Amino acid sequence: MARINENYKKLQAGYLFPEIARRTREFAAKNPQAELVRLGIGDTTLPLSESVIKSLHATVDKMADSKTYRGYGAEQGQEELRQAIVDHYRKYKVDLQPDEVFVSDGAKPDSANIQSIFSSGAVVAVQDPVYPVYVDSAVIGGKTSGFYNGRYEGLVYMDCTEENEFFPEVPDQKVDLVYLCSPNNPTGAVATHKQLKKFVDYAHDNEAVIIFDAAYAAFISDPSLPRSIFEIEGAEEHCIEINSFSKLAGFTGVRLGWTIVPHKLVIEGTVPGEVQSLWNRRQTTMFNGASNIVQLAGVAALSSAGQKECQKMIDYYMENARIIRNGLNDVGIVTFGGINAPYIWAKTPDGLDSWEFFDKLMNEAHVVGTPGAGFGRLGEGYFRLSAFGERSNIKKAVASIKKNLKI
Amino acid sequence: MARINENYKKLQAGYLFPEIARRTREFAAKNPQAELVRLGIGDTTLPLSESVIKSLHATVDKMADSKTYRGYGAEQGQEELRQAIVDHYRKYKVDLQPDEVFVSDGAKPDSANIQSIFSSGAVVAVQDPVYPVYVDSAVIGGKTSGFYNGRYEGLVYMDCTEENEFFPEVPDQKVDLVYLCSPNNPTGAVATHKQLKKFVDYAHDNEAVIIFDAAYAAFISDPSLPRSIFEIEGAEEHCIEINSFSKLAGFTGVRLGWTIVPHKLVIEGTVPGEVQSLWNRRQTTMFNGASNIVQLAGVAALSSAGQKECQKMIDYYMENARIIRNGLNDVGIVTFGGINAPYIWAKTPDGLDSWEFFDKLMNEAHVVGTPGAGFGRLGEGYFRLSAFGERSNIKKAVASIKKNLKI
Repeated sequence: MARINENYKKLQAGYLFPEIARRTREFAAKNPQAELVRLGIGDTTLPLSESVIKSLHATVDKMADSKTYRGYGAEQGQEELRQAIVDHYRKYKVDLQPDEVFVSDGAKPDSANIQSIFSSGAVVAVQDPVYPVYVDSAVIGGKTSGFYNGRYEGLVYMDCTEENEFFPEVPDQKVDLVYLCSPNNPTGAVATHKQLKKFVDYAHDNEAVIIFDAAYAAFISDPSLPRSIFEIEGAEEHCIEINSFSKLAGFTGVRLGWTIVPHKLVIEGTVPGEVQSLWNRRQTTMFNGASNIVQLAGVAALSSAGQKECQKMIDYYMENARIIRNGLNDVGIVTFGGINAPYIWAKTPDGLDSWEFFDKLMNEAHVVGTPGAGFGRLGEGYFRLSAFGERSNIKKAVASIKKNLKI
Repeated sequence: MARINENYKKLQAGYLFPEIARRTREFAAKNPQAELVRLGIGDTTLPLSESVIKSLHATVDKMADSKTYRGYGAEQGQEELRQAIVDHYRKYKVDLQPDEVFVSDGAKPDSANIQSIFSSGAVVAVQDPVYPVYVDSAVIGGKTSGFYNGRYEGLVYMDCTEENEFFPEVPDQKVDLVYLCSPNNPTGAVATHKQLKKFVDYAHDNEAVIIFDAAYAAFISDPSLPRSIFEIEGAEEHCIEINSFSKLAGFTGVRLGWTIVPHKLVIEGTVPGEVQSLWNRRQTTMFNGASNIVQLAGVAALSSAGQKECQKMIDYYMENARIIRNGLNDVGIVTFGGINAPYIWAKTPDGLDSWEFFDKLMNEAHVVGTPGAGFGRLGEGYFRLSAFGERSNIKKAVASIKKNLKI
């Protein structure tokens, strides 16, 4: 008789965002006059750029004509886009081959699915606080046992605290897979070359693989900070990088991303190219490519004109970040991140816990954020605000915090 | 140290289509003058229809305006599309709830990923011949051991032969998951109500789940044949249905499909709604929704005008199928399918095996098809031709077969 995958039962119910939605709905029902400003989810608000829109219309027109219609494409993505991504990396002095680039429908599915090519017994290390997808996909894949005291047994947690400026030390034990996210969601911390080099060295010494989520790389303005793990010497032998057009070009709903699996990446029992070919096999078997309506729009976003348009969006969001940071600091709330990353990681005032501050901020200032505790045990006592809102809303939120928040 | 998922090594190398591509490339290099007609892959060739194109342009315009721009959508799909799919099923007198419909990026990923919600020890039954994705995803998921004599140990194969008109008997042992595809890829066979009822009864008696792939349902013209497993009494308690806009509306490259998981579906140890909520959890954790550029195009395809346009495309492809069938029959080749399905399943003449006939057809008639052996042991001695080509190519292929094929 059919049985369910019991690992799902280990997942902690009430995924963060549904719980936020529930509390927000309840508040709105009780306070129909209150205008809530939502700075919780990291969702883009600026429209797609001119180059992207032009490309989308052109592709749609091509799909209307039998001479230019395209059916199934390569599961790994269109050649033009793979090449454009290779060219994009040249800006960081990173040399890739087009067949090391796997176009996908976004960083979220890739960061979960990548586990498929590794042993189900792999020991996974994650940052705490952490983007929940890495953890939940490990749980579903059977890599954990119980959940105690805010953590899954079987996972290795790398503490991110005020003391280490929210970037962790390498694990003090052997692990197989290490998820790193920089610029970080949720803390907004960005790893330096030196910090990443330590992890690449750790991977070398322990024959581990680093899964590097660079989805927010475009928000780095400090030229001394690495935008790709492959800027670090030796990284090609130990790292996979996941990235996305979601935040780079406002494609959150458009769904387009990529994963780099270098030929040079070698793990126990494999030869060069073998891990790359495993991901190729996974993608060709269980995925059928990103929509061909949107792939050339990715090329447009990476073009010289497209990059200028993207930079304008990023500047807009980063000005939002500045306004939020200053506003919080003005009322005495300590903040982190929000400089080379679109997230502001705020310390909850007066010793409130994350959910208490969530309720207080909503009740008093009518602003919805994300409780840090939703990202892991060490997120407790912190709060995430997203800079992806519309400017007038950001200003309204900050004004309301200054005027109405009682701290 | 990191290790690979060893199950990948069990996969038989040379997936069918790369091997076809290799042989075709070789032939083309040696015969630069020959104009090959490709009837191998089931890829659509007609452009997207007017309603769909109009919808795509309208959505792109909305994404260019901050007032109508949409970022992240629900992972389960936009409400309008879920409702349109519910309405679509009403035509078959099937009553669904919108939250039983999960919009996806296509039938291929869903048919592989659905295994995630069931026990990794599940025994899987597949038809032979079979669409390779069901098998390969079971292998990757660790449900098989070795590969002997053309079959994976651990899978249960349900024979589809000329004797049973290519629709199998129910398994003669207990299994947990049963993949059925009707109209069938590759044989073009379509199950009757009576045949499907036997499977639903089998599922009831054995507490199994049927995963029903209805991706070619739109090609059924015989009103007595079921287009959805949910037309069968009791199916909601035992079945999941996977479907797609790929062949229905020419969306092969557009990537849009859906999966129905009914609330009533109950398996060992679950209550009603629990399996549905497991798939919801899988999709919200490991998927981020189909592209929002194309979802309303799905609504357009299911509209009354859209359905008329789709029907024209289907009629066109089915006329292709008729031309192929008649052409093959004229030269004495026995065919199956191709009446309520876009695939013609041909018996190789003169006792040739599938690959011998592949080479002969390419060398003599310059037509590329798909060797039946690529779909399983019982595909040996058969050959698949796809009706999705362009009409003049179809005619050219048939004329060349009649003139040049030496049988």
